[in-house]
Formats: sequence, structure tokens, C-alpha cells
Amino acid sequence: MNDELDNLIQRWVRPEIRELSAYHVPESGDLIKLDAMENPYCWPAELVEEWLGVLREIPVNRYPDPAASGVVNVLRDALAIPESAAVLLGNGSDELIQMIAMAISGTDRVVLAPEPGFVMYRMIGLFTGMRYRGVALNPEDFSLDMPAMREAIEREQPAVLFLAYPNNPTGNLWSKKDIRELVKLAPGLVVIDEAYEPFAEATLMDWVGDHPNLCVMRTVSKMGLAGLRLGLLVGAPAWIEELDKVRLPYNINVLTQASAEFALKHRKVFDTQTARIREQRAVVTEALRKISSLRVYPSKANFLLVRAPDGRATELFEGLKREGILIKNLSASGGMLTDCLRVTIGTPEENLALFEALNKII
Amino acid sequence: MNDELDNLIQRWVRPEIRELSAYHVPESGDLIKLDAMENPYCWPAELVEEWLGVLREIPVNRYPDPAASGVVNVLRDALAIPESAAVLLGNGSDELIQMIAMAISGTDRVVLAPEPGFVMYRMIGLFTGMRYRGVALNPEDFSLDMPAMREAIEREQPAVLFLAYPNNPTGNLWSKKDIRELVKLAPGLVVIDEAYEPFAEATLMDWVGDHPNLCVMRTVSKMGLAGLRLGLLVGAPAWIEELDKVRLPYNINVLTQASAEFALKHRKVFDTQTARIREQRAVVTEALRKISSLRVYPSKANFLLVRAPDGRATELFEGLKREGILIKNLSASGGMLTDCLRVTIGTPEENLALFEALNKII
Repeated sequence: MNDELDNLIQRWVRPEIRELSAYHVPESGDLIKLDAMENPYCWPAELVEEWLGVLREIPVNRYPDPAASGVVNVLRDALAIPESAAVLLGNGSDELIQMIAMAISGTDRVVLAPEPGFVMYRMIGLFTGMRYRGVALNPEDFSLDMPAMREAIEREQPAVLFLAYPNNPTGNLWSKKDIRELVKLAPGLVVIDEAYEPFAEATLMDWVGDHPNLCVMRTVSKMGLAGLRLGLLVGAPAWIEELDKVRLPYNINVLTQASAEFALKHRKVFDTQTARIREQRAVVTEALRKISSLRVYPSKANFLLVRAPDGRATELFEGLKREGILIKNLSASGGMLTDCLRVTIGTPEENLALFEALNKII
Repeated sequence: MNDELDNLIQRWVRPEIRELSAYHVPESGDLIKLDAMENPYCWPAELVEEWLGVLREIPVNRYPDPAASGVVNVLRDALAIPESAAVLLGNGSDELIQMIAMAISGTDRVVLAPEPGFVMYRMIGLFTGMRYRGVALNPEDFSLDMPAMREAIEREQPAVLFLAYPNNPTGNLWSKKDIRELVKLAPGLVVIDEAYEPFAEATLMDWVGDHPNLCVMRTVSKMGLAGLRLGLLVGAPAWIEELDKVRLPYNINVLTQASAEFALKHRKVFDTQTARIREQRAVVTEALRKISSLRVYPSKANFLLVRAPDGRATELFEGLKREGILIKNLSASGGMLTDCLRVTIGTPEENLALFEALNKII
């Protein structure tokens, strides 16, 4: 039986998939979670009760509205989506990236992205049988290496170019002038991934409509609704119509639809929370910069990229874990992330715990 | 701008996708919904309150448990999943079919299924760049055409064979002997789709472990949780491990995890509801068989396939709609579904409304 199983898997599962190890998410247990770019704030109690009142009326026995019109309408308003643009919803940005890749996939087609970047651009390119090409950022400040980007676009003729604004895991915003040039150069679709927009105080949403090959991707995860898994892609109706064809018809469940609609109607609560996170970002940046052995990169997101002294990132990561704090160790990714850690901005109390732990360790 | 857009879409969106029309789900408005195989019963009020109490404690600001261990454990128990088998979760069966197809896709690889069958086998095969082949059932009783199946398996060497047990939209259970022969003949993965298991009083779940190429797919949709979009695939750990690699890491959101876990702990409530639906299936079958111009096929699912008099299916469908009842018109699918309608079993009141409307129209 086991030999037969092995033979079947060897024969039928694509080699690129067999070679992968499964995506591993570490257990966080009781640790302070500063690893996943979550908004650390819960909802006010009265908001929770009002929300439960909405869910009370939801027929869980019925299929969801396949068009999710209620939540789309509220999103249009809350996120200032241009009227001329159309909206596609996914279970997180991940599912949207997958829909894009499925609609245009082909072994001769390339997904291009600057690196280091969001790991799912590469993974989903691989899942859908495309070729992925990464182009290294400038290692000093993680800005776009424009000669390398121009050359890669010319050579690879990418079907999709992902540009995160701001970028994860580096936290910086690339120059609008550079992005505009790449959008004009790119022969295929350009997806501006604005997952961290609530912390960036900058958006390219108003470029949709100016460039026929540009879409903007957002998520409600970082604003405080990571548990819901709701992402959206905004673009010309002609693009969205095509991508919508590969959407699984009832992809957004009834509870996510109702909860996101409810939360976005109370957008101010989340705006207050994200403003607090931006304030704390300044506090944490300043505090970490006082530790002279660390290099703290400027960030327009809800996390900081921090470079540890040579070869000491893992030791710092483990030390923090022993002190009850979970951050993200990026050092194993190698390249320009060697020695790098990523710290999500927490509540003032969580951030204080981080400072104390760091000062104890270093 | 519009010409540019057109050119981009022509160049980059795969022709197979461009040719598709988007999956259309008709608006149901205030109609009695007998179109979508939903369980018509809501939850008892006290169960709703207890459920809301569970949701009150859910941190919506945090990412879901990527392994969804809580709900997996409850599913193992509630659905009698063999201990030696592993479980993969998806947003409905749809996402599971997509994961299977992505892990084994390739333009030279074939998805095979008897027809008429669930439309997503074909659609997702197409989304992932595989070749789909359908094999016609015996038109008289929708049983498997074994000579044709044998021949197709031999010729096409399918990477995946989907067998729905019972089948949708025909409602019948195929012979276990026939299925066993096909499982042994099939060179690739065989997925037994048991979406309608709550109404079938039959399962092949205990075959997992006997056949290295067999997985069983289930969903909580038909038992009464269609709004949650939760499907599961049960198979040998070696298969599930490979398929899990193409799962988007946080695919099942926090509310679905908590709600499904809660509901399955109260499985009896849903068992009572599905038992009531099976009783009503007998009542509706008998009542419709009294209308001599209709042919009602035997069903082990929560719907009936009904053949209208020659060329009159659409007229009947529209007539019922005017009377406030939405069923599914399959006649346009053509082939052996010409003149066919599909009627979901509703509450006794809804079914009475159906009889009255039918008697008025015919």
C-alpha cells in the first residue's frame, strides 16, 4: 500500500509541488504576537454586541450572495474606490493573486516582483504553473533598482508585475515616479498591492482608470479584520470581468460578508486603532534606534524591519521568545534579509514589553 | 484607453477563460428557494444564542489557525473519519477541487467525470489548464455506462476521476460494485464526492485506506451550513500532505472555524433536520408522481430530478416562478437533461406551495 501510494504521488503530483515543503506557521501559544502584522486591538464591547445582533439574523443554512453586493457597496464608500472601477473579492489577497494567476497562467508566462517581497507572489505563480522571476531591490535602502527592473521587464515580458505599496517585509514606499515608469513599461497587468495602506497615508488607488494595465489590491486584514480573510482587487471593469470568471462562485461566506459590511460601516473605530498603531510605530522606531547595535529601517507599514548585528538575528529571535515575545525571523531567507528581523507594532504595553526584553537580552 | 484594454485582455487572459461567460446565479428575491439544495431549516433560537456566545470571544483582529485544528478534530468525530486518514479543509468543495487540480495540473492531464455531473469538475479543470472529459451516463436510469467508463479510463488515463455519490443533478447512487471496479482501473486519483451524504444513508468513507488512490470529499453545506462554505477532503496522509502544499495558508476564516466547530458539536439538531428532509423527499416524490405528465427520478439526495413533457420545462419553470417558487431549470444544459428540472426538498409548507402551484399550472 505504501509503495503504491508513493508511486501514485510520484506519477501524478507535479514535481514542483512535491519539492515544496508545506508553509509552516509557528505556534504562538501564550506569546505576545508581534509576528503577523495584526492589529492588536479588539473591538469595543458595545460594537461586539451590535455585530452579534447582525449575525443573529444571518441565515447560515443559505448559500452566500455570490456577488457579495452589500459588502462591495460599503467597501466602495469606505475605501474611496473610483466609481468607474470594478471590484473583485477574495478570501484574503492570496485568493485574488491565485485568480489573477489562473486567468493568465501558462508555463511560458512570467510573474515578476521586486525582492524581498511577499512570498505568495512566488508561491502562487508556482501553484498555477507560471515562471516566477524576482528582481533584487537596492540593498542599501530597499528602493527599486530601476535599471534592473527595466531590464527584467524588457527581457521577461511579465504577464503580471506585483508592486507592493508599501513593500513587505521592507516597510518602505517606493517612489511614485519609479512606479509610474514601470507601469508604463510593463506589457501585462500591474498589481499594486496596498495591503498596508492603513499605515502608509499614501495610495495609488486614484491611478486606476489612468492606466489600462493597473489594478490595486487591498485587504481588510491589516486594518483590524485579519480573521475574516477578505481581500479586494480594484480595476477596470473589463479586467475584473475576466478575472471574475475564475472566481469560485460562492467564495465569500455569509459571516465574512455580514461582518465586513458591519465593520466598514464603523470604519472610524478602526481608523482610530490604526492611527494609534502609526503613533506607536514612531515610538518603537525611536526606542529601537537607541539600541546602537540594531539598524531600524524607516517604515510606512505596521511593522519594522530591523537588522541585527552580524549572525545574531536568530539568537535575538530566540531570546525574545524566551521572554514571551514572538516576532518574525527573516534571516533564514538569506540574501539581503540575512540578519533581519520583522517586528509588528503592538499596543503600548506590548511594545514596552518588547523594549524591556530587548534591553535585557542585548 | 478602451482599445488598449481590449488588446491587453486579448494578449494576456487565456483564450479558454475569455470564451467563458461568468457563472450566473439568479436573484431569488422573495421567492421560495427550491433551487440550491439548501437545508430550509434555521437554527433553534437557543442554539443561535449559544453560538453568538462563542463568536463573542473570537478575536476577529487575529489571523485564523492555519491548521484549523479545532474544527478538524470535531469533524473527525462527527463524520466518523478513519483514524488513519488525514483531512484537508477548503472553502466549500470548490476550493478542494481547485487544490487537487492545481497540485496535479498540466495541459496533458485529464479530469474525467460521468455526465451529467457537478459543473465545477469541468470548470476548475479548465481554470487550472487541464483537459476535461465527460462520459455520458446511461440515459434511462443515470447509472454508470461501464463499457464507456472503462474505455475512457483506458484511453484518457485520467489524473483525476470524480465520482459523486449520490450524483448531482441526477440524485441517484451508483452501484458500489461499479465504483469499486473504476477505482481499481483508474491510474490516478479518484475523488468520491459525498456532498449529499446526509440524505444518502450510504457512504464510501470506510474505503479510504483500502485504496491508495481514493479520497472522499464532504461538505457541511447540505447538512445545513451552506453559508459557511466549508468542505473537507479525507484521504491517505501522503496525498493530503501534497495537496496541502497548494492550500492558501489561512484559507478558513475564524468565523467559519468557530461556527462549524460549534455546529458539529450540536450535530443532532442537524441530523433531525436532515431526517425531516428525507421524509419530505418521500412525500414530494409521491405527490409529483401523481402528476402523470412528469417523470420523477428516484433520489438519494435532497432534491428531485424531474422530466417535464417534451419542450415544456422552461414554461413550467417560469410558471412556478410566477407563483413565487424558484427551482432549477436544467433543460438548457441539453443532452439527457433536456426537459429536466431540479427541485430541492423544502419544508412541508414550501413543498405544499410547490404542489399547489404545479397543479395550478399543469
